[in-house]
Amino acid sequence: MTPNAPLPDVQKTPDGRNIAIDKVGVRGVKFPIEVLDRENGRQRTIGNFTLTVDLPAEFKGTHMSRFLEALNAVGHEVSTASLPALVHDLTERLHAAKAHVDVTFPFFREKKAPVTGRAGMMEYECGFQCEGNGEFRTTLYTRVPVATLCPCSKEISAYGAHNQRGWITVRLEASEHVWLEEVVDWCEESGSCALFPVLKRPDEKWVTERAYENPRFVEDVIREVALRLDADKRVTAYEIEVENEESIHAHNAYAYLRRGKPPKG
Amino acid sequence: MTPNAPLPDVQKTPDGRNIAIDKVGVRGVKFPIEVLDRENGRQRTIGNFTLTVDLPAEFKGTHMSRFLEALNAVGHEVSTASLPALVHDLTERLHAAKAHVDVTFPFFREKKAPVTGRAGMMEYECGFQCEGNGEFRTTLYTRVPVATLCPCSKEISAYGAHNQRGWITVRLEASEHVWLEEVVDWCEESGSCALFPVLKRPDEKWVTERAYENPRFVEDVIREVALRLDADKRVTAYEIEVENEESIHAHNAYAYLRRGKPPKG
Amino acid sequence: MTPNAPLPDVQKTPDGRNIAIDKVGVRGVKFPIEVLDRENGRQRTIGNFTLTVDLPAEFKGTHMSRFLEALNAVGHEVSTASLPALVHDLTERLHAAKAHVDVTFPFFREKKAPVTGRAGMMEYECGFQCEGNGEFRTTLYTRVPVATLCPCSKEISAYGAHNQRGWITVRLEASEHVWLEEVVDWCEESGSCALFPVLKRPDEKWVTERAYENPRFVEDVIREVALRLDADKRVTAYEIEVENEESIHAHNAYAYLRRGKPPKG
Amino acid sequence: MTPNAPLPDVQKTPDGRNIAIDKVGVRGVKFPIEVLDRENGRQRTIGNFTLTVDLPAEFKGTHMSRFLEALNAVGHEVSTASLPALVHDLTERLHAAKAHVDVTFPFFREKKAPVTGRAGMMEYECGFQCEGNGEFRTTLYTRVPVATLCPCSKEISAYGAHNQRGWITVRLEASEHVWLEEVVDWCEESGSCALFPVLKRPDEKWVTERAYENPRFVEDVIREVALRLDADKRVTAYEIEVENEESIHAHNAYAYLRRGKPPKG
Repeated sequence: MTPNAPLPDVQKTPDGRNIAIDKVGVRGVKFPIEVLDRENGRQRTIGNFTLTVDLPAEFKGTHMSRFLEALNAVGHEVSTASLPALVHDLTERLHAAKAHVDVTFPFFREKKAPVTGRAGMMEYECGFQCEGNGEFRTTLYTRVPVATLCPCSKEISAYGAHNQRGWITVRLEASEHVWLEEVVDWCEESGSCALFPVLKRPDEKWVTERAYENPRFVEDVIREVALRLDADKRVTAYEIEVENEESIHAHNAYAYLRRGKPPKG
Repeated sequence: MTPNAPLPDVQKTPDGRNIAIDKVGVRGVKFPIEVLDRENGRQRTIGNFTLTVDLPAEFKGTHMSRFLEALNAVGHEVSTASLPALVHDLTERLHAAKAHVDVTFPFFREKKAPVTGRAGMMEYECGFQCEGNGEFRTTLYTRVPVATLCPCSKEISAYGAHNQRGWITVRLEASEHVWLEEVVDWCEESGSCALFPVLKRPDEKWVTERAYENPRFVEDVIREVALRLDADKRVTAYEIEVENEESIHAHNAYAYLRRGKPPKG
Repeated sequence: MTPNAPLPDVQKTPDGRNIAIDKVGVRGVKFPIEVLDRENGRQRTIGNFTLTVDLPAEFKGTHMSRFLEALNAVGHEVSTASLPALVHDLTERLHAAKAHVDVTFPFFREKKAPVTGRAGMMEYECGFQCEGNGEFRTTLYTRVPVATLCPCSKEISAYGAHNQRGWITVRLEASEHVWLEEVVDWCEESGSCALFPVLKRPDEKWVTERAYENPRFVEDVIREVALRLDADKRVTAYEIEVENEESIHAHNAYAYLRRGKPPKG
Repeated sequence: MTPNAPLPDVQKTPDGRNIAIDKVGVRGVKFPIEVLDRENGRQRTIGNFTLTVDLPAEFKGTHMSRFLEALNAVGHEVSTASLPALVHDLTERLHAAKAHVDVTFPFFREKKAPVTGRAGMMEYECGFQCEGNGEFRTTLYTRVPVATLCPCSKEISAYGAHNQRGWITVRLEASEHVWLEEVVDWCEESGSCALFPVLKRPDEKWVTERAYENPRFVEDVIREVALRLDADKRVTAYEIEVENEESIHAHNAYAYLRRGKPPKG
């Protein structure tokens, strides 16, 4: 190459294979962000991003560095309100018909023990997905641990009942703002008992007895979450997964339920 | 309970919430299996199973132990030919309208170095997914590592070009038998160079030069795989993902492409 | 380079930094193996190997391909009896003072339900570590899931008691042959109850009641394992970890105990 | 139990097995923290904690909730200066002879592209470990990705050279304050080239050529890091691991080196 000549742009050379690509971009991009927090206004956390656009058949490649520049430009605020702007910015920078942003992050709430009120921090994996161009579809994502106690084990045993940590994953679309905290609450109400960061003995007695009084299969848990989502007029589509880390088996119990348009891109 | 009275069946008690569940069952079940091997007839390996059925709205729960009994009964052979029988058996045992089996396993091939011919064992993550009742849809799954060398880096640099390990994931449906080995070959041909377990110096020279002569973006790799799948009359639908563990970034480059009916359950 | 001239050996060029390296080699090598099985003689499984040697200060590098050739040469049998030969072979091929082999693999046992006797396959992560030259130290590794029921929760609650899946990891050195199955048995006896692949209702009643009758903290579990290891004259050193996936918290309870020479390389 | 009677303390009942436990506590505790940042004073991030104490032979169990209370009490600041107070607090609350705190967290630095100066955020996994009572040993931990280009491949090939993402892990003890940023810098100088979040074409040319001019085996990388640690008078002991995600193999190249007292608890 001649010195000082502009470097060739290989990506924008034409491609003869005539194959359009649904999504191309970057994955596993870590970036400090701020998300909305119902109690405290905002919360600082760390996003793990996937950013993609479609690529028409005629171009050889996309320009990967522009995804990172878009992230820098839009700044650190991430919400269902702000994501369409980032998605739109990606379509502009990359001359794309459609873009997708998927971000997950640890989300913290202060949580008090049920009897003594001792407080601690409880972490939930949360996230948003947004895609489109002009019209945008946004999905909320939460993954919430709960305790589940087996109704069959309780019924057939002279005493005790096996219980375990279970994980509830919800992806939902809504017509109006839904707080992540609302979805977390719906999940925690749907297990046999919620989990807590700090439990003193009177609290441990309370959670043990509450789980025993409230036995739930994975089937019960998923239906309880579905009832709450069905009852909320804002929720227009959803997908729920429940997975129990069975304390009597090395494998897990699992349930899956979807309503409305599939919320996954 | 009266001694010797039969234990109550909580799962089959009626449920008043009127919510049918798409899938319920077990996940993370490890089981030794045998799969078909084009060179050696059969290969012993270890399956990681998800087994589910649908659950009508009127029943409280499914009977989880029957999934494991079905696995024991059908035995250790797993292939696109044998899976429908397992799926059908699940619908019978669990009185279900539809069942799903998803299994992944390590799959080995002996692979020779390109110049010296030194042999070693190369591992690929493979799998099958089968669902239905009476009519069955079966999906093949392969995850294949390749080397990818960046066309832009090669073009703009005075010498060298960044390259890295990339992962090609294919899920496909076919109208006739397709060997896992065929899909692995298509993937390995689509990168800048295949990977090898043993490479002596003349082999290392060969793979280094071959990758340099054959630069490929994730966009190129995914199109090369798509060309091979499109050219094969047996393949009726597919989904491809390519992810490059970029050697110049801490994040990955990613591409996704789907044709035909979504092959994921 | 002149055509047909031998390719230069960069690795064996001298190094001026005067820094010897404790271990250098390959990691994440997957290889089909056979291990000893007390009930069935042998069991085919899949090894995940780390193979290393020391590197004297005067050499620039080691020859990585020879690790793979050694694995191919020694063949597929892996046991505490056969590993010293592989370790010795590595020292020869790589002109090293000392070599290390670390292998982990899924290990299966048929396991019957406690009341109905229904059989299924139960998987344990096991492994061996061997290092030395002339004199060899070999370590057995097992990771065993058990159910643990909280003594405090049982004592303070009107009914029920929280319980969960716990993981017991043992690494031990012995003066004579110890079966992996023996270590797995010691671990399973040390929890509140063992796990099973298949449980019908009478079995589920049995395991629920047994765990309730047999409450164990992580502290109890680790001491029960230690008692069994201390009581066996063949065991000369050990390291135990117990981790409970608490069903009342999102975090885990953890205990660690070591006796004798540290068995980790 | 009599209503209103204090709940029994099972943990402090005597234990007859006569086995002291090296470490018992909690693991996987997520907690929002602030760490020191050389450029910006402080940085908010998310800690993943393991907190343990020793347990004398005579007691049945430790009091797990106190670990969480200690974390709440000491607050969100985590540094080599503040950790001894947390460790000491644990020994007080739990009547222990010795306590251990291990925390890892994502650590971000703004990083500019080498030619165009485009900035982005680069993430490193970092951490601290502190143990003792009265006298404390503190360890710094960093895990840094770099590009590594193979000297052998470059030497023997007509053009090109395979390269890949490598990971450098350092654990060190020091007699005086060492910034995490210093250790990150030492690691990034020791590979063939540092990684960057944003690279435009002139930058990509620069990093490609720089890596090619600067070939490094895992053996070279580990020695380069060791030279820098040896040259710094504050560093009193260290442990280094380097792992290359080889672009020509499905397995990794690995090196390990330790100097001075083992810095791992």
